[in-house]
Amino acid sequence: MNDIASEFVLDEARAGRIGFGEAVFCAGKSPAQIGAILDSAGAPMLLTRLDPERHGALTREQQAQLDYDPVSRTAFSGAPAALRGAARTAVVTAGTSDVPVAREAVRTLRFNGHDAALVADVGVAGLWRLLRRLEELRAMQVVIVAAGMDAALPSVLGGLLPGVIIAVPTSVGYGVAAGGQAALNAILASCAPGIVTVNIDNGYGAACAALRVLGTP
Amino acid sequence: MNDIASEFVLDEARAGRIGFGEAVFCAGKSPAQIGAILDSAGAPMLLTRLDPERHGALTREQQAQLDYDPVSRTAFSGAPAALRGAARTAVVTAGTSDVPVAREAVRTLRFNGHDAALVADVGVAGLWRLLRRLEELRAMQVVIVAAGMDAALPSVLGGLLPGVIIAVPTSVGYGVAAGGQAALNAILASCAPGIVTVNIDNGYGAACAALRVLGTP
Amino acid sequence: MNDIASEFVLDEARAGRIGFGEAVFCAGKSPAQIGAILDSAGAPMLLTRLDPERHGALTREQQAQLDYDPVSRTAFSGAPAALRGAARTAVVTAGTSDVPVAREAVRTLRFNGHDAALVADVGVAGLWRLLRRLEELRAMQVVIVAAGMDAALPSVLGGLLPGVIIAVPTSVGYGVAAGGQAALNAILASCAPGIVTVNIDNGYGAACAALRVLGTP
Amino acid sequence: MNDIASEFVLDEARAGRIGFGEAVFCAGKSPAQIGAILDSAGAPMLLTRLDPERHGALTREQQAQLDYDPVSRTAFSGAPAALRGAARTAVVTAGTSDVPVAREAVRTLRFNGHDAALVADVGVAGLWRLLRRLEELRAMQVVIVAAGMDAALPSVLGGLLPGVIIAVPTSVGYGVAAGGQAALNAILASCAPGIVTVNIDNGYGAACAALRVLGTP
Amino acid sequence: MNDIASEFVLDEARAGRIGFGEAVFCAGKSPAQIGAILDSAGAPMLLTRLDPERHGALTREQQAQLDYDPVSRTAFSGAPAALRGAARTAVVTAGTSDVPVAREAVRTLRFNGHDAALVADVGVAGLWRLLRRLEELRAMQVVIVAAGMDAALPSVLGGLLPGVIIAVPTSVGYGVAAGGQAALNAILASCAPGIVTVNIDNGYGAACAALRVLGTP
Amino acid sequence: MNDIASEFVLDEARAGRIGFGEAVFCAGKSPAQIGAILDSAGAPMLLTRLDPERHGALTREQQAQLDYDPVSRTAFSGAPAALRGAARTAVVTAGTSDVPVAREAVRTLRFNGHDAALVADVGVAGLWRLLRRLEELRAMQVVIVAAGMDAALPSVLGGLLPGVIIAVPTSVGYGVAAGGQAALNAILASCAPGIVTVNIDNGYGAACAALRVLGTP
Amino acid sequence: MNDIASEFVLDEARAGRIGFGEAVFCAGKSPAQIGAILDSAGAPMLLTRLDPERHGALTREQQAQLDYDPVSRTAFSGAPAALRGAARTAVVTAGTSDVPVAREAVRTLRFNGHDAALVADVGVAGLWRLLRRLEELRAMQVVIVAAGMDAALPSVLGGLLPGVIIAVPTSVGYGVAAGGQAALNAILASCAPGIVTVNIDNGYGAACAALRVLGTP
Amino acid sequence: MNDIASEFVLDEARAGRIGFGEAVFCAGKSPAQIGAILDSAGAPMLLTRLDPERHGALTREQQAQLDYDPVSRTAFSGAPAALRGAARTAVVTAGTSDVPVAREAVRTLRFNGHDAALVADVGVAGLWRLLRRLEELRAMQVVIVAAGMDAALPSVLGGLLPGVIIAVPTSVGYGVAAGGQAALNAILASCAPGIVTVNIDNGYGAACAALRVLGTP
Repeated sequence: MNDIASEFVLDEARAGRIGFGEAVFCAGKSPAQIGAILDSAGAPMLLTRLDPERHGALTREQQAQLDYDPVSRTAFSGAPAALRGAARTAVVTAGTSDVPVAREAVRTLRFNGHDAALVADVGVAGLWRLLRRLEELRAMQVVIVAAGMDAALPSVLGGLLPGVIIAVPTSVGYGVAAGGQAALNAILASCAPGIVTVNIDNGYGAACAALRVLGTP
Repeated sequence: MNDIASEFVLDEARAGRIGFGEAVFCAGKSPAQIGAILDSAGAPMLLTRLDPERHGALTREQQAQLDYDPVSRTAFSGAPAALRGAARTAVVTAGTSDVPVAREAVRTLRFNGHDAALVADVGVAGLWRLLRRLEELRAMQVVIVAAGMDAALPSVLGGLLPGVIIAVPTSVGYGVAAGGQAALNAILASCAPGIVTVNIDNGYGAACAALRVLGTP
Repeated sequence: MNDIASEFVLDEARAGRIGFGEAVFCAGKSPAQIGAILDSAGAPMLLTRLDPERHGALTREQQAQLDYDPVSRTAFSGAPAALRGAARTAVVTAGTSDVPVAREAVRTLRFNGHDAALVADVGVAGLWRLLRRLEELRAMQVVIVAAGMDAALPSVLGGLLPGVIIAVPTSVGYGVAAGGQAALNAILASCAPGIVTVNIDNGYGAACAALRVLGTP
Repeated sequence: MNDIASEFVLDEARAGRIGFGEAVFCAGKSPAQIGAILDSAGAPMLLTRLDPERHGALTREQQAQLDYDPVSRTAFSGAPAALRGAARTAVVTAGTSDVPVAREAVRTLRFNGHDAALVADVGVAGLWRLLRRLEELRAMQVVIVAAGMDAALPSVLGGLLPGVIIAVPTSVGYGVAAGGQAALNAILASCAPGIVTVNIDNGYGAACAALRVLGTP
Repeated sequence: MNDIASEFVLDEARAGRIGFGEAVFCAGKSPAQIGAILDSAGAPMLLTRLDPERHGALTREQQAQLDYDPVSRTAFSGAPAALRGAARTAVVTAGTSDVPVAREAVRTLRFNGHDAALVADVGVAGLWRLLRRLEELRAMQVVIVAAGMDAALPSVLGGLLPGVIIAVPTSVGYGVAAGGQAALNAILASCAPGIVTVNIDNGYGAACAALRVLGTP
Repeated sequence: MNDIASEFVLDEARAGRIGFGEAVFCAGKSPAQIGAILDSAGAPMLLTRLDPERHGALTREQQAQLDYDPVSRTAFSGAPAALRGAARTAVVTAGTSDVPVAREAVRTLRFNGHDAALVADVGVAGLWRLLRRLEELRAMQVVIVAAGMDAALPSVLGGLLPGVIIAVPTSVGYGVAAGGQAALNAILASCAPGIVTVNIDNGYGAACAALRVLGTP
Repeated sequence: MNDIASEFVLDEARAGRIGFGEAVFCAGKSPAQIGAILDSAGAPMLLTRLDPERHGALTREQQAQLDYDPVSRTAFSGAPAALRGAARTAVVTAGTSDVPVAREAVRTLRFNGHDAALVADVGVAGLWRLLRRLEELRAMQVVIVAAGMDAALPSVLGGLLPGVIIAVPTSVGYGVAAGGQAALNAILASCAPGIVTVNIDNGYGAACAALRVLGTP
Repeated sequence: MNDIASEFVLDEARAGRIGFGEAVFCAGKSPAQIGAILDSAGAPMLLTRLDPERHGALTREQQAQLDYDPVSRTAFSGAPAALRGAARTAVVTAGTSDVPVAREAVRTLRFNGHDAALVADVGVAGLWRLLRRLEELRAMQVVIVAAGMDAALPSVLGGLLPGVIIAVPTSVGYGVAAGGQAALNAILASCAPGIVTVNIDNGYGAACAALRVLGTP
């Protein structure tokens, strides 16, 4: 009953089925489990939610094989895919505190061969910050928007942009905003049409959805 | 135990204490209770949440003494206060469905001697609708904003207007928006500073708060 | 204050900005408001959440100008856009009771010139029903999945399909499922990567998101 | 008022009434209380939710009398019951992070004389992982399924297996999944018939329910 | 798009896979959909949540082929399975108002060939009512307990009975009890070990779980 | 299975155990069930939540044996207990709409031989209404307070009165107040010490608690 | 603005108004604030929620003037009131983990001159533990019941005891029980009549309510 | 992607648009981000939610340029605006634990040139504490009220004062009060007219709303 290796089963055929491979979500796993997965991995692998404590608890060899970004808590094991041309995706944040979630999306896209433009701190309280970036955003095939608190930014963008808009509610805020449920509900109830969303703080999932769009011929 | 008249106690000195009188909230009252209150009233009186069914169940005499507006479900018993000059308040709605709540605010202000401008259906999905009314709104001392669903409009206004902004979440919407809790939380969590709010659908309360502002010398 | 025509402001330039026009959400509007909008409309228009009661309360002339579908509660005023080739979208339902939501999506796509395949009642309790349709679904650019109760179907599809997957939680179910919140949360928390979602019962929004994908060159 | 021994009353006759004895739930108890219970115990005893901190705070003698498993946070005081033949129960997990809950169930069954097969990380995002274990699972009298996040696995199993299915929602996940409520609701709302459930993370309770089934002649 | 027959796909092989067949859940279906399913059915079929209004909207021929019980809102289309001996299941209710849910369980068991004893109105406020039935209940292999409000009855039974206990929270009650969530949570949090539960008011699901137990050799 | 009489079991010895008898809660019962209970009753009996529709559906004979009060929805079957002296209990309401709940308490006390003073519409928005009744209230052994919305009245009374204070949250209000949860939580979180509470709208339960106090020698 | 002494205003006349004095709730206060209150106190004073960290941060002199009990986190500053005879109150707990809350009630009663009997760990899963203490409990004027998880104990006692029953939900438990909301709702929805309750873990409030009962002549 | 300076965009024109400048909300920002903002700042700047840990992690130079108040967790970078005469605002607290929130409001007002009177610990449990300050409060143009738990104080003030009343729910309390949601809902549901509110613990937002009122000519 104590064999760690028997506790995970990599879904190696996933990329063949859906277009991109399985990532290792580290938040609920012990360093021993993460290390065992790293040691058994053959192909390049993306790790998410690898906080600095867990990263620091890996062996020196395991750490050496990782390209680690502490802000987004992501790591690449092995080389990412080659870039497929100029960025067709922008990742926008309402505030400075939403940047870690946005970077998780940027890094996931990069691991899978797609560049992305990061446009930070353009929330609606100072509308001019957003409007001066509008032409840039209108040219994008996909716009990922990370926003916490009241998450008004996706609604405003939804009325201005023709591309696919994937809103990521973040857990930024306090009081009724804490945890991101208020942001999530505001996005779901948006008066702007055709905005889609993912779980709170799920920058990885938003990037995977973007991959599904970008992969379409 | 069955004496209806003993079941209500009008707070006749309220106007002297806080600047405006008590209104009769009809939603939880039987037509008999409402009628008894009307029959005992001396001074002019504002009735709120008087739905057409309850209004129709009043006696012909009682109906005749009322100036009734079915959209806002308000009634004036007796003459409203004389107007105190041009409108210093605007009542803005995000959508067409928020109009009944907005009208409750307009009627409450009117009963107390204040005119108000109604600016309807200027939600953020079509931002130009709002921007072309901006100068008009920037001149107002108080702006009441009725918005349901994601309630992004108050956040956008909060970054653009210098006046007092009182947001009223409405129960307009479905799914996670139903009941107005999503709109309320978005307003409370707004990234724009100094927006205040009241209970869901509470156009009356927003108008009372405006009266407290307008009454200041 | 009683001028109905002043209570709505059509966002006529929306199609130019985002690729498809504004629809009229009828749920919170009175028949008089809906009628006034119909009478003022120039271009073709999609109406959603037009229940049979409100539809029946329109004038005979207004009803005559509508192509009305009571199951999806949608109506076309004027001719829909010409079809742009074979269906690149499938709309899948977990159960029979999810069909009205699915049809709202199908009709919205059709109004905007896109055909869609309806694949009903293929929930996971009888997995073979889904697996025999798998090849058909794998060929689609977009798959909209309407599912209530536990909404397990989107997770299963997310591991099998390469296209864009837009899950619509429905309010089908009772007890903890009533209202669709359990389905929504299951979709947001899905273990399958890159699934996006919209508000409960929002077939219209899912179709708009599909339009954003389909519109990309 | 300070006599620790008077603060617990062992239900020694429980096994005679319901078929298995009382376990000591350590989460809310101080090390002093746990130690006092251990010192007063006559018969073998199962301890649950004994985290490493509390375990480490026991005396050396108390620790020595325990067979402790830190992953499941369970301990046996005294010898477990003799095994009653081959495993008639499987304990399945959707992901690697659900293993601690699953092991709590396995250990509870073992303490009461029943072996169980652990089948880990067979969630629905990679359906083939589950399908290749299907025959093994179909032969079991009881299948306990530990799943967090969207908990789609119990629904899929519910349509495939004839045995008793006891789903344990786990608190694995983040955002709307955090705490396990989304998993619990998905299980309760399952479209697959005859699935039963227990409290979040309650591997012990699921095993007790299995004991009630296995004990039937 | 209007072909009703294409909107449902009977899972005809279910009994072969899991031991009992699919039932038709009528709550979310139109009378036309229910009628079409009845007309296409070959084997005997159980219908649940068929309220008197929907039942009355079926054709005379369809009504004639049904054995309908309005209290439980269940119907048998075709003959139920032959009885397999004396009752090994009891269905217990805390109050009189829980009887409809209990009867749904009794009818589901009966349709599948199992008799069940109904023991009504033995809630814990009058403990003697329960204690005088204790010997009868201790002899049962399965005890289904329908309880609303505080749902204390399953906890008391859990400490007294050795059989499988399946608690069904009901939506009986008002205030914090309304909807059954308080009863559900009390059952999940029960201090008595090994109690399992199902969705609120889900007498059908409890009976299906019982079938999984009874079917074990 | 259709014998209505077997579906209820009166707890006839309750008065002997706890000091007052069982009442019949009619909200979840069919008129047939209520009628059967009335027909089988020997001793006087209190009925609660008997709405006018159910009352009207009883037979003429059954109606004739009842002293029915439609406001509180209570009925006495048989004579109430003789009065035991002057009122030692006051039932206070914050608003006019709380009167039905208050009357349920007054009637329950009266049925059991205790008179009570009803003090209506003394909410804190007009504090003088309360203060002029203060001496009367300070003399009472028990004060029941029915309050909805923000339920501030019990907190104010809790700092002023020495007697037992039983607060009953009511479902009066709209928006966040609807259903009474806001009132309930405000009472539970009260800054005034020693206030106790019961379920929302539970005037009957508050009166029963008062009986437990009044019954003490 | 920095004068700590101006930040609290003792309600010195409270005992004269309601029969017992103000206690100092330490949970939200800094050690500096608590110390300043202690230094300014004239009469004896009860402190609640004084956790060992805050207690340890007081000066040596302040600690010396306190009779501190770490389990209940209460302290007496000055001598408690003289005892007023034998205990008329019992404080009962469902489990061992509920003891700290129960002790807070016992200590509050003791500070105010009332003895109380502590009856621990008599939850309903082993009903005999409760029944053998029944005669003792039936003789009490007030019974305080601290129970977490499903809180079934107050309901069982409510059908057996004639005295005043004050149930205190505790935050003991995990999953749906965590925080005590499930216990609170079960108590509020209890099928046993006349049980009252207070906030979660509020042993102090339950004791204050008991003081209101005991103080009645 | 690692350029911190690109992650924030100061809204420098805000004061020109709405009357007061942008503050830096430090709770979600790293010390590096806060330091970079400080280093780039030209004009005086208000920092909020700067806890002592983050403050201590700034460089010595950065700390030296700040006027820091640890209780309110606010800092002034640069000189505050000159005072504009005597205080027209009072900031009232229900309890001692609400003082940090109240001070955040006082400091925000002071930074913007307005003095404010702090009136602490005047909750309704000891009503005389409030009543003796009444005349002082009635003279204020704006009264900010910070209250947790049941938040009854704003309702009482709402019936007594003519000025603008901005209630700030605080997260003070435990059990159902924890987090401040109970206080927030009580304020929103207040029976007193014209009270407005902001997010939980949002002393800053309340002060900004006061600035909007005070700024009106």
